[in-house]
Amino acid sequence: MKNIYIIGVGLIGGSLAIDIKNKTNNVFGIDTNENHLEEAINLNIIDAKASYSDLQNADLVVLAIPVDKAVVELPKVLDAVSDFALVIDVGSTKFPICKAVEHHAKRRNFLATHPIAGTEFSGPKAAIQKLFQNKTNIICEVEKTAFKLQEKALQLFSDLGMRIRYMNAEAHDKHIAYVSHLSHISSFMLGKTVIEKEKNERDIFDMAGSGFESTVRLAKSSPKMWTPIFKQNKENVVETLDEYINNLKQFKALMEADNFDAIYHEMEDTNHIKDILKGII
Amino acid sequence: MKNIYIIGVGLIGGSLAIDIKNKTNNVFGIDTNENHLEEAINLNIIDAKASYSDLQNADLVVLAIPVDKAVVELPKVLDAVSDFALVIDVGSTKFPICKAVEHHAKRRNFLATHPIAGTEFSGPKAAIQKLFQNKTNIICEVEKTAFKLQEKALQLFSDLGMRIRYMNAEAHDKHIAYVSHLSHISSFMLGKTVIEKEKNERDIFDMAGSGFESTVRLAKSSPKMWTPIFKQNKENVVETLDEYINNLKQFKALMEADNFDAIYHEMEDTNHIKDILKGII
Repeated sequence: MKNIYIIGVGLIGGSLAIDIKNKTNNVFGIDTNENHLEEAINLNIIDAKASYSDLQNADLVVLAIPVDKAVVELPKVLDAVSDFALVIDVGSTKFPICKAVEHHAKRRNFLATHPIAGTEFSGPKAAIQKLFQNKTNIICEVEKTAFKLQEKALQLFSDLGMRIRYMNAEAHDKHIAYVSHLSHISSFMLGKTVIEKEKNERDIFDMAGSGFESTVRLAKSSPKMWTPIFKQNKENVVETLDEYINNLKQFKALMEADNFDAIYHEMEDTNHIKDILKGII
Repeated sequence: MKNIYIIGVGLIGGSLAIDIKNKTNNVFGIDTNENHLEEAINLNIIDAKASYSDLQNADLVVLAIPVDKAVVELPKVLDAVSDFALVIDVGSTKFPICKAVEHHAKRRNFLATHPIAGTEFSGPKAAIQKLFQNKTNIICEVEKTAFKLQEKALQLFSDLGMRIRYMNAEAHDKHIAYVSHLSHISSFMLGKTVIEKEKNERDIFDMAGSGFESTVRLAKSSPKMWTPIFKQNKENVVETLDEYINNLKQFKALMEADNFDAIYHEMEDTNHIKDILKGII
């Protein structure tokens, strides 16, 4: 793949561009934010900026923009590319984007993916080398993508050092609500609770240690990226929130009832997360 | 200080012992867990094991055991030491332990401290070098400790590379509920929610990334250590839980009402945590 176009030169698009540029010299950036394009050129993330009219020359287009924008732009991108181009998205929701192009004439040029990789930062400055190494990439509705383009995509992901998992888009959105979207909300609300309480007590944050920092890290994430994710995955996310709130209420009730034996066992049972996490990151 | 006795050779006691052993050769361990004592000797964390009857020779005693045990053991330790010994605790609650010895004849030998340092692991194997470097140590009721022993303690903390903050014990327990205890519960309940939902779907954890791992890290913590902390700080912790649950409910209500503008602003406001966290860890 010679001509690569990255739409959205932020954390994910930029990090992909960096790794891909090690293999090729034609990486172009498209972004509504002119400053980001300039930054991406200065940081040597992309070779030059481009526009949709250039997409006819693309071998690969990566759509790495907020998910509400992605569902609007993907059909236009597919309209603009040649029959031989591979178009992938990298969004955190998969059902709406698959739905948005289910009847598109170039559906077979598109591969829906979700690389489970990132940091709490955003923009081209947040882009880093080897972000995707040893990470999982979830591919949805693989059977709807042309076989030759699937092969190209798998080669790319293999070059990036990624493991592949296949899922249907609905199952992806349901499960990712638990292991990713809910974590972000729990972290944002933790940050909010502490900031509200301690707004007049600046020194208090001297009391915060690495445990608090770790738990609240995701509350640094970009609202521009996360609001549309919550919107698109509303039903699943509300369900996870219901269960999370119920578990917190139950924990509180046990405390109020001085049932600390039960609290001990709650925590002991959840320590099992150690084994579960051994396989990841 | 020549003869140092560490009561509880786990993560905190063991890590302190490692750093202190670089300055002296007489570090003794006391622990109800014989295996931990053997491990600590084999790992060169302590020089030898000891018992309460040896405490008369102590220059420094560090009490690093779960907070429910600490309130019981501290009076006995003070009974056993000489008039010249400094006794410090390192527990995550400060009001109950100060209360437990307020009328003790040797109250002036005791300094209540809370080093804001640790990991999610426990036991002597979890002990690491330089755990306390650049961390904050909160000292409570400093005026109740003999001046010469305060000086000794400050020298020790300075040698360990710690910053000092002074607070009263009640304020400590109130604020630490927000910046530490609540984080642990939010993390445990997140772990619980995901494990419950996904118990029949082992592959789903392939979908979990570093964000989930970070948010759920504290759910690996020891129930033996944390149950008594929640018990001793019940009132404050229940208050933080109330506020946290209310914030989550409000977030859910905004989602259900499709008020994603408000959700955007909630997240944007909480991004402020970035600046707050710059000073810590």
